[in-house]
Amino acid sequence: MQNEPGQSMYQLMQRLFPICRSITGNGVRESLAIIKEIIPLNIYEVPTGTKVFDWEVPREWNINDAYVLDEDGRKVIDFQQNNLHVMGYSVPVNEKMPLAELQKHLYSLKEQPEAIPYITSYYKERWGFCISEKQREQLKDGMYHVVIDSSLTEGSLTYGELIIPGESEKEIFLSTYICHPSMANNELSGPVVATYLSEWLLRQPRRYTYRIVFIPETIGSITYLSRNLAQMKQNIIAGFNITCVGDERAVSYLPTRYGNTLADKVALNVLKFRHPDFVRYTYLDRGSDERQYCSPGVDLPVASLMRTKYGVYPEYHTSLDNLELVTPAGLQGSFELLQECIEALEANRKYRVTCLGEPQLGKRGLYPTLSTKESGKLVRDMMNFIAYADGSNDLIEISNLIGVPVRTLHPFITSLVDNGLLEVVDE
Amino acid sequence: MQNEPGQSMYQLMQRLFPICRSITGNGVRESLAIIKEIIPLNIYEVPTGTKVFDWEVPREWNINDAYVLDEDGRKVIDFQQNNLHVMGYSVPVNEKMPLAELQKHLYSLKEQPEAIPYITSYYKERWGFCISEKQREQLKDGMYHVVIDSSLTEGSLTYGELIIPGESEKEIFLSTYICHPSMANNELSGPVVATYLSEWLLRQPRRYTYRIVFIPETIGSITYLSRNLAQMKQNIIAGFNITCVGDERAVSYLPTRYGNTLADKVALNVLKFRHPDFVRYTYLDRGSDERQYCSPGVDLPVASLMRTKYGVYPEYHTSLDNLELVTPAGLQGSFELLQECIEALEANRKYRVTCLGEPQLGKRGLYPTLSTKESGKLVRDMMNFIAYADGSNDLIEISNLIGVPVRTLHPFITSLVDNGLLEVVDE
Amino acid sequence: MQNEPGQSMYQLMQRLFPICRSITGNGVRESLAIIKEIIPLNIYEVPTGTKVFDWEVPREWNINDAYVLDEDGRKVIDFQQNNLHVMGYSVPVNEKMPLAELQKHLYSLKEQPEAIPYITSYYKERWGFCISEKQREQLKDGMYHVVIDSSLTEGSLTYGELIIPGESEKEIFLSTYICHPSMANNELSGPVVATYLSEWLLRQPRRYTYRIVFIPETIGSITYLSRNLAQMKQNIIAGFNITCVGDERAVSYLPTRYGNTLADKVALNVLKFRHPDFVRYTYLDRGSDERQYCSPGVDLPVASLMRTKYGVYPEYHTSLDNLELVTPAGLQGSFELLQECIEALEANRKYRVTCLGEPQLGKRGLYPTLSTKESGKLVRDMMNFIAYADGSNDLIEISNLIGVPVRTLHPFITSLVDNGLLEVVDE
Repeated sequence: MQNEPGQSMYQLMQRLFPICRSITGNGVRESLAIIKEIIPLNIYEVPTGTKVFDWEVPREWNINDAYVLDEDGRKVIDFQQNNLHVMGYSVPVNEKMPLAELQKHLYSLKEQPEAIPYITSYYKERWGFCISEKQREQLKDGMYHVVIDSSLTEGSLTYGELIIPGESEKEIFLSTYICHPSMANNELSGPVVATYLSEWLLRQPRRYTYRIVFIPETIGSITYLSRNLAQMKQNIIAGFNITCVGDERAVSYLPTRYGNTLADKVALNVLKFRHPDFVRYTYLDRGSDERQYCSPGVDLPVASLMRTKYGVYPEYHTSLDNLELVTPAGLQGSFELLQECIEALEANRKYRVTCLGEPQLGKRGLYPTLSTKESGKLVRDMMNFIAYADGSNDLIEISNLIGVPVRTLHPFITSLVDNGLLEVVDE
Repeated sequence: MQNEPGQSMYQLMQRLFPICRSITGNGVRESLAIIKEIIPLNIYEVPTGTKVFDWEVPREWNINDAYVLDEDGRKVIDFQQNNLHVMGYSVPVNEKMPLAELQKHLYSLKEQPEAIPYITSYYKERWGFCISEKQREQLKDGMYHVVIDSSLTEGSLTYGELIIPGESEKEIFLSTYICHPSMANNELSGPVVATYLSEWLLRQPRRYTYRIVFIPETIGSITYLSRNLAQMKQNIIAGFNITCVGDERAVSYLPTRYGNTLADKVALNVLKFRHPDFVRYTYLDRGSDERQYCSPGVDLPVASLMRTKYGVYPEYHTSLDNLELVTPAGLQGSFELLQECIEALEANRKYRVTCLGEPQLGKRGLYPTLSTKESGKLVRDMMNFIAYADGSNDLIEISNLIGVPVRTLHPFITSLVDNGLLEVVDE
Repeated sequence: MQNEPGQSMYQLMQRLFPICRSITGNGVRESLAIIKEIIPLNIYEVPTGTKVFDWEVPREWNINDAYVLDEDGRKVIDFQQNNLHVMGYSVPVNEKMPLAELQKHLYSLKEQPEAIPYITSYYKERWGFCISEKQREQLKDGMYHVVIDSSLTEGSLTYGELIIPGESEKEIFLSTYICHPSMANNELSGPVVATYLSEWLLRQPRRYTYRIVFIPETIGSITYLSRNLAQMKQNIIAGFNITCVGDERAVSYLPTRYGNTLADKVALNVLKFRHPDFVRYTYLDRGSDERQYCSPGVDLPVASLMRTKYGVYPEYHTSLDNLELVTPAGLQGSFELLQECIEALEANRKYRVTCLGEPQLGKRGLYPTLSTKESGKLVRDMMNFIAYADGSNDLIEISNLIGVPVRTLHPFITSLVDNGLLEVVDE
């Protein structure tokens, strides 16, 4: 399992899938409690009304049940069947009304007649039901009894945080969101990959400290930033927003505001070798918490590494984004991609060769003594590394310059440092 | 007319067309007097012999009449028919000579047998007649009586200047030339567009001061620079040389010496959205007064926005560059292009968003409260603007970064500043 | 001959070809003595065991004869026929052995059955014979008498150096190697071109000092650097490694470590005009003494200009790299390419035009006084040169900006300086 957490991640996702999450409420708490069984999360509650930058923490929303009964008392829409049926943050309602009136509160997708859309109204009081277009077409004229047993009350916004200390106070930041009801790629793939990356990190030697957060999207990242900004700006050297990491159709990268941070650098380096056909978005395509992390004045180096990006796949924000769309292999690939980025960050230093001219590798047993027309790729890579180990480039830059993955170079470096041919240049 | 000056510009061109202009003389004075009926030009006279940088103001050239009579006394060449027939700056002549001798003074174009070429000899004393190749072929052997009733005398070089003050002493500079006889795209399109841009600017609120000059090409810009260089270098932030702005075949851009000034920046930004298929020349293709404005030590930020560029269209510097080549629509398009550049310069500031994280547009009525799968292009543009409004980019740079014209962004900005979400960063 | 040294270079190569060179030994001394007949080389000897950076000077290797006799006493392999037959630095041997044992010491190329490979073992004691695959297939079972009459003794490493002083202490550096036995493109083309470039330089007026070295590859450049590094780092402004300059199949360029030195700049400028289809390698493709000259801490601006690069042509490091592969025309072209680079370096200064605005070339007799539709390319080039002669660009940069070779611009410049229109800007 430790090397192949794909199945474990998938099983965790199966457990989290049925829970009705929103940006506040018991669904988030229940989800975080399950994750806490695996990693030692700290859970925080931020009261309704707390000012967070330009926003304030909204009232807490909870829901027990919701349905629509026809004249025969049959449930024609039933929250118990799929929690997407209720518009997120719907106010309570218990009314009888004709179909014409009910229609004003129904949401469906003409172009995807089988799909239940995911709709929310966090900041304006409304109620509504989301159903498939097919289901909608079957509704007959008549009176309906509409019940949403929800509550909007003073309460709090809940998030989870895990700080894993390393040798340095400098931090690598991982953020994922946990505010969507039953959808798999966006969003549950994010929390499950973040959970198992944390589980792996807890078992590694660590140069850097890791700050990992499970938050509601937008209001959660704003809330978290408003409470931790100074420390985050001081310490975070690179971070990733983990979202849409579950399917197998693509590997995608979305940069920071200017695409010039260490997070971008390591992501592009690892992707170049691992997924040369990756999809490269621009910051204009953003849509998740990098909107906050990379905003002016916040300016954190947080990029996104994804599978198929939110918004660009047909199942996005519908009931079709389900457990069939996401696979253990999809999760595993994302886990390994982020793992390789983290390993590259941990290994990334500036090195300087200690002798002038090329070192004589032969006398140290590092070079074939017989010169033939064929020269080994391995020796070539090592000599190329040494050629650029002039103290001005870090390891990722050398990897880019010589076209060899950091993972391939790392063992060389250990051996060259051991032989005294290479020294770390302190920054 | 105020919004559609194309017709007015064309009518002004019709009035100016018959006048015989040169780099000095009464043709220039007469032309400037007509323009002064529309805008309050100041007219300057610079005496012959005045040292201007490496040059000196030449003698003034005027011409009353010119013709060639055959043995039967018929005018086979007649200045009254077309003022291109006389080589510019021809010295006076009144002689009889055989055809063979006359031929040495005739200029025509084999490859354009219908066209009268435009030829001058400002700095070496000569006389000549320019005729079509067809006309030339019809000349029969025999004696001809050649008359050019011109004068080259101590006099002055004439130019027009209009300074339109704005809030700032910083200037936007517009230069056009007025030294060619009857030709339309090169050159009369330039002065007429410059005239109506001035007329429009006089009616606008103005952040910047405008310096607009109507000068003879080369010697005129050198003369003007030699009298105003210090102030121009101190104040001018961007400028345009207005030439060849009358036909409808192309939109063209010719950069400054290094292509890196504000004039280049605004021109490229406006062209990108307005005329994505514009023709991009290099400074090596230059041929007008940017040769002086952008010369080493002068270093003014003056680019050229043109229709079909001088030198690259077949009618250039011939009698075929006439009132049919230039159209009201051609003039109108150039007017609007320059207008949009000026508006962008006027609007161009650095902005900074006043809150951390994304602002909550909803509570300010700037955002749809119902979150659906579709998000408006308008909101997207506004959020993208805010994302880069970090105080480091000016408006043109943000326009480039987010792919939205300055014209589209400008109303947003007003509304965001009014809402206190945005502040101007003083440079 | 002075203008067409191709034949002279080819004849010198014919003389040097039969000599058995290695990284030490009498073959090098004999070769340098022949070159010294043409240019006043200084010959240096560096004793075995001398520490040179991470290396030490190896024992000296000499060889009198070598052969393999079959049971009938016939020489089946004979060093006298081709000195490639003996593996470089073979230890002495005089033994009888069966074919099976001999096979372990034979080197041939399956994919090039006619070629004798070139093999060395400088740093591990071995002996061996190199033969064609065809020859190898003809060896019959039986006993063989193997003789290599060589010696590995305390001695010295030999190299040649020529310093040609110029007005400035700043140096241009030329390096070539002289350590390969009978092969023509790699390597003898290098020393013969370097010899005749030196011969030419000795006859030129020189702004710069020239440092020209004939050394064994790798250990020789390391040795030379270890004895001269401080002075070289202080003085050398550009240099070229001269290797593989004899065939006619390609023109190639291999940059310095970052490709950003004056050597790169001049090479790319000259190649762009002279050989626009040149092959551009990267520093990752390196394989000669730039490995030392461009190593971290040495950091000399030494690029390579080649014909077909070592390692990429099929005859490389075999007996097929012979006097047919290299031609007088191939050598001549390389000579001229390097000559043009040197001339460009000598001419390369920053210039500034002395007047504001365009100079009036007419009054100085530098411009046609009759303005016609056609304007001369020559005038255009001169005006473009003046446009960028603003004191910020050197001549090579202006050449790149305006697309005109330095060679074409140079005569203009002299004339403009003579007219007082241009001044040199001291750096």
